[in-house]
Amino acid sequence: MSTPSSAGPACPLPLGEYPWVVLAHGGGGRLMAQLIERVFLPAFANAQLDRRHDGAVVRLASTRVAFTTDSYVVQPLFFPGGDIGSLAVYGTVNDLAMCGARPQYLSCGMILEEGLELQVVERIAASMQRAARRAGVQLVTGDTKVVERGKGDGLFVNTAGIGVVESQIDIGPDQVRPGDVVLLSGDIGRHGVAILAARESLEFEATVCSDCAPLAEPVMALLAAGVEVHCLRDLTRGGLASAAVEIAARAGVGIELCEREIPVLEAVRASCEILGLDPLYVANEGRFVAIVPQVQAEQALQVLRAHAETAQAVAIGRTTAAAAGQVAMESAVGGHRLVDRLSGEQLPRIC
Amino acid sequence: MSTPSSAGPACPLPLGEYPWVVLAHGGGGRLMAQLIERVFLPAFANAQLDRRHDGAVVRLASTRVAFTTDSYVVQPLFFPGGDIGSLAVYGTVNDLAMCGARPQYLSCGMILEEGLELQVVERIAASMQRAARRAGVQLVTGDTKVVERGKGDGLFVNTAGIGVVESQIDIGPDQVRPGDVVLLSGDIGRHGVAILAARESLEFEATVCSDCAPLAEPVMALLAAGVEVHCLRDLTRGGLASAAVEIAARAGVGIELCEREIPVLEAVRASCEILGLDPLYVANEGRFVAIVPQVQAEQALQVLRAHAETAQAVAIGRTTAAAAGQVAMESAVGGHRLVDRLSGEQLPRIC
Repeated sequence: MSTPSSAGPACPLPLGEYPWVVLAHGGGGRLMAQLIERVFLPAFANAQLDRRHDGAVVRLASTRVAFTTDSYVVQPLFFPGGDIGSLAVYGTVNDLAMCGARPQYLSCGMILEEGLELQVVERIAASMQRAARRAGVQLVTGDTKVVERGKGDGLFVNTAGIGVVESQIDIGPDQVRPGDVVLLSGDIGRHGVAILAARESLEFEATVCSDCAPLAEPVMALLAAGVEVHCLRDLTRGGLASAAVEIAARAGVGIELCEREIPVLEAVRASCEILGLDPLYVANEGRFVAIVPQVQAEQALQVLRAHAETAQAVAIGRTTAAAAGQVAMESAVGGHRLVDRLSGEQLPRIC
Repeated sequence: MSTPSSAGPACPLPLGEYPWVVLAHGGGGRLMAQLIERVFLPAFANAQLDRRHDGAVVRLASTRVAFTTDSYVVQPLFFPGGDIGSLAVYGTVNDLAMCGARPQYLSCGMILEEGLELQVVERIAASMQRAARRAGVQLVTGDTKVVERGKGDGLFVNTAGIGVVESQIDIGPDQVRPGDVVLLSGDIGRHGVAILAARESLEFEATVCSDCAPLAEPVMALLAAGVEVHCLRDLTRGGLASAAVEIAARAGVGIELCEREIPVLEAVRASCEILGLDPLYVANEGRFVAIVPQVQAEQALQVLRAHAETAQAVAIGRTTAAAAGQVAMESAVGGHRLVDRLSGEQLPRIC
């Protein structure tokens, strides 16, 4: 976070000319109105926000809707492949997609720390808007709070999202059946490594970019193609391993994964070795697993591979009636080990 | 915020037995799962949350929905008449009500600071659930993040809300017409004074309790009674004055208010005098203004007075074609003054 060198000018600048966040930007008065009018309304411009009401009133295409929320506290705010703004849009859009919903509307709640440069807020708002366009959603309602210096960390953002569930099928761990195939939408571990490298100013041979991306299009394509998707889960905190363990526990099936089928970029693998991390547990922001009936697995892979974000999709395992609740990994050399949930904290403030 | 006396025990306690928040509670692993299973699921218990999916899938009664969000950063977390949890429920429910919507579902995103006692999280979650029951909404989806000690302030919470718009009338500043009557739902200034007294450990002659309360029922009753409500606005940051100024500016009408009609508790008036605050600008969390056609003003007051939260509703002024965009106050002794937006910060972290 960038802060001015002193607590502020002895003689206040004309209103609206503070180059950093002051407490009054969250106070409900003139400065807050200026922040909204000069930063958020131009960035997110749409008819709903322009009404400046307490909330947005929108018309949905269906009464069956998905609703989700995430707060984002990632440090640093900007990293190779994204920033907290794009992350806050794609993360929430992806949670809607994992419910089988087409994302439609997002809210945006910002908690700013006194002293943060307003330019940073502007850059992040612009990034959110670009991400929203790419993901096909509108940011229709928002809120800004300001906390004193030392009571926050630059900027936290919460987004909540509404999506419309068009498909009639029910998606969730309870739909998983033994004999299903586990698909993975691409290589793993990039987001976590990108953040850690940016945070520690580490220089690896190749810069690893976050995989941060919107996933609703390939998911909608799977459903439109008639694939009876049983379960979807995006791989965020805790990585592929934690997602697999959670699904196995909730579904009451065993999951057998094949390590050599799980794509990991060479640069990610090398960085993880240096950092002492296991890519299986490293966070991702543009990857998901889809669990589908075995007879539709090949069709599902073809659908996914037609989309840029999921072009490297692969089958990485299957579900079993035996060993219910457990995840087993067949290693590259043929050995087997149990995959467990992470007990500690591999990497804080990753998203 | 309560913190343990050291950075933590040298030898970690058995998992799940930390009495305070540690970074791993936000890490996507075992401790986060335990926090969810032991604190949030029991507190918010409902079928949606129990599915533990990335989001909730709900069925709405209509395709016309209101959507809103607010983050809450109030200090202290507990104050006379409420706490950050009840505030986070009622604040968002009230924003939906101000859109003319019946609140239905809330999300809950928490940002916890490392070192916060888990007991505090439990108390706040329980308070949110009580408030949700009272307001007739369900907390169906959530998220928890943890930031390092010194990078937050105990607990911040964001709620987003979805409500169903049952009425066909359009509510907003652009619907206001000259000659309308401005109704106020009760006495003003209590929330701000309660927070400031709690924060500064001030002892006034009488304890002032926050007015924090859900407002959807009286609003739904107004609409059900056929009152053609033109505009609704709850009085939060910036108080009655800021709400009136904003409505006048957006509606392109003048607003004339009559000071002697605006109820202020004697204890609030006395506290404001000591603190150098103007009750007109002090935050409220259970008060709103309704702007209604003059011919329905008496009927609207009768409807409001039948509800506990709005039993003291009064008419405080009217809208005019003249002096468009301005708010004028007729003082108790008959003088007139212009009411302006607050330029600075009267009281930070009030909600």
